[in-house]
Amino acid sequence: MTRVAILGAAGYTALEVIKILLRHPDVEIVAVTDLQEGKPHVATIHPSLTGRLDLCVEKLSPAEVSARADCVLACLPHGISSSLVPHLLDEGTRVVDFSADYRLNDPDVYAQWYDQKHPDAERLGSVVYGLPELFREQIVDAPLVANPGCYPTSAILALAPLLKAGLVEPDGIIVDSKSGVSGAGRTPGLMTHYPECNESFTAYNLGRHRHTPEIDQVLGTAAGRPLEVVFTPHLVPMDRGILTTTYSHPTAGVDEEKLLQALRDFYAEEPFVQVVDHLPATKDVAHTNFVHVTARLVRGHVLTISCIDNLIKGASGAAVQNLNVMYGYPETTAFA
Amino acid sequence: MTRVAILGAAGYTALEVIKILLRHPDVEIVAVTDLQEGKPHVATIHPSLTGRLDLCVEKLSPAEVSARADCVLACLPHGISSSLVPHLLDEGTRVVDFSADYRLNDPDVYAQWYDQKHPDAERLGSVVYGLPELFREQIVDAPLVANPGCYPTSAILALAPLLKAGLVEPDGIIVDSKSGVSGAGRTPGLMTHYPECNESFTAYNLGRHRHTPEIDQVLGTAAGRPLEVVFTPHLVPMDRGILTTTYSHPTAGVDEEKLLQALRDFYAEEPFVQVVDHLPATKDVAHTNFVHVTARLVRGHVLTISCIDNLIKGASGAAVQNLNVMYGYPETTAFA
Amino acid sequence: MTRVAILGAAGYTALEVIKILLRHPDVEIVAVTDLQEGKPHVATIHPSLTGRLDLCVEKLSPAEVSARADCVLACLPHGISSSLVPHLLDEGTRVVDFSADYRLNDPDVYAQWYDQKHPDAERLGSVVYGLPELFREQIVDAPLVANPGCYPTSAILALAPLLKAGLVEPDGIIVDSKSGVSGAGRTPGLMTHYPECNESFTAYNLGRHRHTPEIDQVLGTAAGRPLEVVFTPHLVPMDRGILTTTYSHPTAGVDEEKLLQALRDFYAEEPFVQVVDHLPATKDVAHTNFVHVTARLVRGHVLTISCIDNLIKGASGAAVQNLNVMYGYPETTAFA
Amino acid sequence: MTRVAILGAAGYTALEVIKILLRHPDVEIVAVTDLQEGKPHVATIHPSLTGRLDLCVEKLSPAEVSARADCVLACLPHGISSSLVPHLLDEGTRVVDFSADYRLNDPDVYAQWYDQKHPDAERLGSVVYGLPELFREQIVDAPLVANPGCYPTSAILALAPLLKAGLVEPDGIIVDSKSGVSGAGRTPGLMTHYPECNESFTAYNLGRHRHTPEIDQVLGTAAGRPLEVVFTPHLVPMDRGILTTTYSHPTAGVDEEKLLQALRDFYAEEPFVQVVDHLPATKDVAHTNFVHVTARLVRGHVLTISCIDNLIKGASGAAVQNLNVMYGYPETTAFA
Repeated sequence: MTRVAILGAAGYTALEVIKILLRHPDVEIVAVTDLQEGKPHVATIHPSLTGRLDLCVEKLSPAEVSARADCVLACLPHGISSSLVPHLLDEGTRVVDFSADYRLNDPDVYAQWYDQKHPDAERLGSVVYGLPELFREQIVDAPLVANPGCYPTSAILALAPLLKAGLVEPDGIIVDSKSGVSGAGRTPGLMTHYPECNESFTAYNLGRHRHTPEIDQVLGTAAGRPLEVVFTPHLVPMDRGILTTTYSHPTAGVDEEKLLQALRDFYAEEPFVQVVDHLPATKDVAHTNFVHVTARLVRGHVLTISCIDNLIKGASGAAVQNLNVMYGYPETTAFA
Repeated sequence: MTRVAILGAAGYTALEVIKILLRHPDVEIVAVTDLQEGKPHVATIHPSLTGRLDLCVEKLSPAEVSARADCVLACLPHGISSSLVPHLLDEGTRVVDFSADYRLNDPDVYAQWYDQKHPDAERLGSVVYGLPELFREQIVDAPLVANPGCYPTSAILALAPLLKAGLVEPDGIIVDSKSGVSGAGRTPGLMTHYPECNESFTAYNLGRHRHTPEIDQVLGTAAGRPLEVVFTPHLVPMDRGILTTTYSHPTAGVDEEKLLQALRDFYAEEPFVQVVDHLPATKDVAHTNFVHVTARLVRGHVLTISCIDNLIKGASGAAVQNLNVMYGYPETTAFA
Repeated sequence: MTRVAILGAAGYTALEVIKILLRHPDVEIVAVTDLQEGKPHVATIHPSLTGRLDLCVEKLSPAEVSARADCVLACLPHGISSSLVPHLLDEGTRVVDFSADYRLNDPDVYAQWYDQKHPDAERLGSVVYGLPELFREQIVDAPLVANPGCYPTSAILALAPLLKAGLVEPDGIIVDSKSGVSGAGRTPGLMTHYPECNESFTAYNLGRHRHTPEIDQVLGTAAGRPLEVVFTPHLVPMDRGILTTTYSHPTAGVDEEKLLQALRDFYAEEPFVQVVDHLPATKDVAHTNFVHVTARLVRGHVLTISCIDNLIKGASGAAVQNLNVMYGYPETTAFA
Repeated sequence: MTRVAILGAAGYTALEVIKILLRHPDVEIVAVTDLQEGKPHVATIHPSLTGRLDLCVEKLSPAEVSARADCVLACLPHGISSSLVPHLLDEGTRVVDFSADYRLNDPDVYAQWYDQKHPDAERLGSVVYGLPELFREQIVDAPLVANPGCYPTSAILALAPLLKAGLVEPDGIIVDSKSGVSGAGRTPGLMTHYPECNESFTAYNLGRHRHTPEIDQVLGTAAGRPLEVVFTPHLVPMDRGILTTTYSHPTAGVDEEKLLQALRDFYAEEPFVQVVDHLPATKDVAHTNFVHVTARLVRGHVLTISCIDNLIKGASGAAVQNLNVMYGYPETTAFA
């Protein structure tokens, strides 16, 4: 039995991780924390947990968390996370960090994209990027796992196998992503106010979305040399789901079947990645940890289409998948 | 040409009233005001007005407004509105007030439902309720018109003709209303945060929604004696539209055809109310000033179904309809 | 291990029941059937099952089904179901029937509401209505369970305890229900064509929805005498969820706390019914087998608000709950 | 006064064109036709026209149409349209054709993409493409105008000015478009069945959408030489709106300001195209004939974002705009 604490209980990723862990036979949720005072019951914050989890949300120090938990799932904003994680690690508590704080290897890149000095810069470069499909072996014994961003997961899983197989050029990659609104979190604002974003479709953060360097870094690793993608996120009027369309240039002699076969080969043993022949829809993977991905060759360009649930495979499901790898549970435990 | 000022420019009702007035050949929008500093262009607040209205949003005193405008459309919250309206009226400016401040006749009822003493209590009782289908003659020369609430419009237009005709009992009326989210205004909050209210349906403010006494009052007038309705509002995951289902008790000898004929007779000359035989949908009236209404007799109960666009016939369209009545323009001017 | 066959595989209730049963440790899905030729893989019909269930959809006779399965979940239309079920029962196969064919006790009432003579009329009256919260004991050994309708489940669970406790009058009950679009099934039509029903809200089948006699019958049983409700279904632009608002008359001396306490008492031991103090939203129970219900006393009327997921507690989850009762598995097995 | 007949009355584009023309002071709708028998009132097909247009839908021959109308707006499917248009033109009736039949200049390209021989092939090459922003002068006296496709309108208006100004390379253009569901028309099908496409996002027709050669052709004209785009359409769970994101390669010395200035210069006198500095959303132009467009330079790629209402500027509004040009009415007549 692994004792798990969830930090930052009020958000959507915490809610989803709780729902998944309620299905996990070998995990006990021992604490859920947030900054608010007064120990409200978790069901007053998330009515959908009524009768399902009888815990109160507490304001706990890292030491108090470590005293109770073997493993922490930190659903905290960037900047906050890296101020707490070192204390947890010092206490011997393992951490899956949902924030962006430990995803990038280079503190300068972090500072450039996140407009702040990294609070725990010396640790960067030694933290594993929590995508089991690419880095499973390093996750097994990792004290700290950087849970991937939702957009990067959708882009990387589509393109990394093609880059590794040398089927697409590392230069000139375009990542055109479309996300449901839950990706913006639970804090109300005008952009996510229902009558503003419902029945509307928009692009945002062109050329400056913070998931860009994360995609650059991991695809660069796959390609064997640095690369820079053009990444364009869009907001879709739906709760959840990301569909990512990528455009890249094939190397010599590539045809559509080679693209699909490279994906099939790469994911042959993976429990959650399904290489499909049809064009997938986000609904096909909603509320699951699955990825559906396909590839096409159109007028001399390689296209990939990949779908995930941004809150599951793009966040909370990935975290539980990482936890399963870290603690030696079958990777599909708690998923079905 | 009537010079119109719009107070409270940032909200949805102001936006809709601007869009309607852009089609009005005899109205000039001379000012749009709000509390914010710096005179932003109206298109920076409402991007949909880009290239359509070249005005800046100003912070103006009532005297400054009156100096420019013949008529004010006040899209302000209750409490605020009644602190400004007396000054405008004193200057001879006519006002259509979107707030609830002048809809109720009794200051005690206002105080009970709005939790505050009315700032302009002595005026109550002499202000016309701006529903032309019921009170057209008083609107013609009114200095101040209380624009009706969205829910009351949908309920009153369905039931008033039946009460006036003595076809339903005044007691035991149930008003079960369903509204799109724009009815909650443009201020972000958790209840109207997209991932909270999308793909969800809920009731709210059971037994204590502030539109209740307004429905009581106007239906009581129609019935010729006081009455109290049970009013239950619900939130529908859509931008706009109200559908109201009412349940009441028929008087002796009533059948379905009598109900429908009473509605047809009452609205025979009305340009915006359509008595339909089928069950109407909110989409049928979306983006219009129309009302679609029908009636049924089911197992000894009278049912009415009525649909409006909450922002048009439920607010901004009604205001322009009132303005047309007040200034002698054909009532359908600016609508098509 | 219970071997289960699912008849009528192409619809939404079949898809949901498959997803639930994939989590059931003691159930094996041995067949999924439909009328189409050619044995397509289930994932070609439901892409969301890709990599999750490796079965083909077959066209099987009742005898072939019975040869493989201990229990049949029949996701078939009314009329069809009752032409197959007798054969399955004759073979000793137990059946949970999703159709309306075995819900009503009186063949005349069936004929009146379903416009056809019942094909298996003599069985009516002896089939248990599959709502474990009311009829658990009869379900345990039943060869055939009539899985309840979605609307009736939401209405009955809210009102039956109040009728049984004598807190509301049996006469004059109004059931105003609002359902997501998946309740209309998977066959395309104009009413459920996206641009028709999206951003729209409508009532339908006023006074003639076929779930009416089902509500009458079960609430009549709870009340101890026949009753007739006014039932009004509405269509909400969302995938799933039903919220039902009921209005009824309190008996003497009833206050709000008595209503809530009667619900709490009745459901004290129930795993899936949560009596809540707040006003529930359909999203709180989406994708779960839970029911959230509350009650209010407003201006002399009793109001209840209840929410279910129409495809889970309103159909497929209820079926698995029944199966668990029938086979002695803990009732929450496969749910979490 | 221009007498207009609308062919194909049951679809969404016909409904929208009727709503726009109801605001046109110089147009009389003299006939609405469809293939169904029995002359149903137009409001029975489109309830939103109740009380607004008192016409019946008739089954008329081209000769009968020409006898009544000066101008025909043909809202018909491809293949059907080109079998009727020649007869109308022979009678001297002018036509705005909504179908794809007269958009392409080359019958072989038509045959390749539409899988059929063109019924009126010799006319191709001499029909003006009805985009006033590019071809206004040829529209003025045209007997037949090919109303543009919705996707092409959004892509062409963003890219044509940049190609004409030599700011982007003609090769390697990617057009990634996202459309609301009304673009798929009013015929029900599984893809547009509400529970299938709601809360889902998908790509479709990769590399084979029929709007591709139309974009190729018009952008090729703008570039001064043939080109081939990669066009990827996606389906957004909303009623209406298209947002198109394009990616292309800048020519030497291009910066972001040059891109924006080229757009501003090109559209300086255009009433419906707004070049904006912010990132536009489809909601900003919903229910209007406006286009909002902007450009960015990101990591060496030119990006454009453009938004239209697919049913208005993408179909029915464009048709009325064309009609205004054809008959010498101010181009914004009927729009406001």
